Amino acid sequence: MDILSYQSDFIAYLESHKFSREPKNLYEPIDYILQLGGKRIRPVLTLIAADIFSGNYKEALPAALAVEVFHNFTLVHDDIMDDAPLRRGNETVHEKWDINTAILSGDAMLILAYQYFENYEPTVFQKLAQLFSKTALEVCDGQQLDVDFETRNDVTIDEYIKMITLKTSVLVAAALKMGAIVAKANEDQAQHLYNYGLNLGIAFQLQDDYLDTFGDPESFGKQVGGDIIENKKTYLYLKALEVSNPNDKESLLNLYNGQEKNNTEKITTVSTIFRNNNIPEETFKLIEYYTNKAFENLKHLNINEQQKEGLRMFGENLMSRKV
Amino acid sequence: MDILSYQSDFIAYLESHKFSREPKNLYEPIDYILQLGGKRIRPVLTLIAADIFSGNYKEALPAALAVEVFHNFTLVHDDIMDDAPLRRGNETVHEKWDINTAILSGDAMLILAYQYFENYEPTVFQKLAQLFSKTALEVCDGQQLDVDFETRNDVTIDEYIKMITLKTSVLVAAALKMGAIVAKANEDQAQHLYNYGLNLGIAFQLQDDYLDTFGDPESFGKQVGGDIIENKKTYLYLKALEVSNPNDKESLLNLYNGQEKNNTEKITTVSTIFRNNNIPEETFKLIEYYTNKAFENLKHLNINEQQKEGLRMFGENLMSRKV
Repeated sequence: MDILSYQSDFIAYLESHKFSREPKNLYEPIDYILQLGGKRIRPVLTLIAADIFSGNYKEALPAALAVEVFHNFTLVHDDIMDDAPLRRGNETVHEKWDINTAILSGDAMLILAYQYFENYEPTVFQKLAQLFSKTALEVCDGQQLDVDFETRNDVTIDEYIKMITLKTSVLVAAALKMGAIVAKANEDQAQHLYNYGLNLGIAFQLQDDYLDTFGDPESFGKQVGGDIIENKKTYLYLKALEVSNPNDKESLLNLYNGQEKNNTEKITTVSTIFRNNNIPEETFKLIEYYTNKAFENLKHLNINEQQKEGLRMFGENLMSRKV
Repeated sequence: MDILSYQSDFIAYLESHKFSREPKNLYEPIDYILQLGGKRIRPVLTLIAADIFSGNYKEALPAALAVEVFHNFTLVHDDIMDDAPLRRGNETVHEKWDINTAILSGDAMLILAYQYFENYEPTVFQKLAQLFSKTALEVCDGQQLDVDFETRNDVTIDEYIKMITLKTSVLVAAALKMGAIVAKANEDQAQHLYNYGLNLGIAFQLQDDYLDTFGDPESFGKQVGGDIIENKKTYLYLKALEVSNPNDKESLLNLYNGQEKNNTEKITTVSTIFRNNNIPEETFKLIEYYTNKAFENLKHLNINEQQKEGLRMFGENLMSRKV
């Protein structure tokens, strides 16, 4: 299992699908966002899963592309909603063009994602499209909960985990299951792989939350502190509310209710409170908990030890990332 | 063929699919827009087509719902882009809620549309989803051309017809073909019905353009003169540029390049120029041309005369509408 060769094969496939068609104002932004790079984690997972079950990962390239185009669609629309200026160190689509362009190009990407499944025979097509629709709708549900949480003051950690499961994990899980579907793995095996992805996805998002506040501004690609500016009730914030003393708690509540207008000041104060309350360590613990749950799911897979070790290493690498 | 019973059966089916699920901020706007009414032309066409070829139009209800939900998705996103305050006499979704809600609820509607095809077996599912994706992407292309035209001064009537074909007609055509697919009509017959819909759709949009300027504000549902405010290069405008004298032509060009800030004034001046140059009559002529082309397509259908007459009457009614 060679992650780098999956990745480069995927990128070559993506490059061969340039969207240089008319009307160019619709398709140029799609090329732009897809060529900003990113880790290509989801499509690589689709290829890994197909390779494990059929040994022919190249047949999963169209499904992998569907997953990556869908993921980028969510980024384009979410960035509008979050008013985010940067994505992967570059201007977001609505910043570089405008909101209308970002809406419409995003819509087209969602449709394009479905079209890639047309490479498969009817039964596989239906299974892929069905899983994809279910997943895509869950991602919308997750995004809505994320938006709802911004104006709620009673979000629990459980609700937060549910939200990131929908917004992030189900797509990681579905990416793996799609590879299994293409490779015609049995449903039971495909589901264990899905569960592995679901737990790994939660760990991944918690890592993302950590990096959003404590990541290196040079390498992170997004605006560091973005979650704090946006009053996102991440695990970091919710855990801090739970464990901090009354003073820190009151500061946090005030800061997240718009009492501090200076963003730099706000980021500094909040991250200091997080550090003083050992929130980074608490977050690492939870990341480890979900990573281990993911590794438990691997035990149910009827694949050889080398393949399991590959999936385990993929998870380990993902959690030690800095971007 | 009883249009009203198709319509009421469709509405009953739609009502039974209320989206009252969580998160409610995502699904309430979907219920809202779908319950604003409208003529339900597209789903009725799906049912008509299925009835003609199989006699069992009820099996086409899920496909009809997909078409209607998709159509309403385009309205929600287009209304954001057009900054439209009214839809069917009520507030648009982004006005009643906000832009972010309209983006995300729209996205969910596009996905929901695909899910309705899951009611069909794999081969039919794939055919429907494939036609749907192709059509949906064409609608995006059409919407992009519409946006592009707003800032161009060299749009031709041919380009305009191409734009409305993509933005409006392909969905009318696909609505019919989907009914034929569900009823397992042969591809050749399904395609003739598609062509009928394509020409009817062009006539329908030209009628819409006419009503946008000359419709009754009481019954039209949208803001009368909206196209003029938005500098839309409709057939009315393009034809007026072609046939009017240099004075009128210059006035139009100035008015459509932002020289008149008062919208009421602008609408009055433009519609007077249109009237003075017989643009309503010219538009009626073109509507008749495309309606007749649609009726020509009916000749190739191996269906009985009564059914053809039904399709003809449907077209006639559509063109004599006031809303």
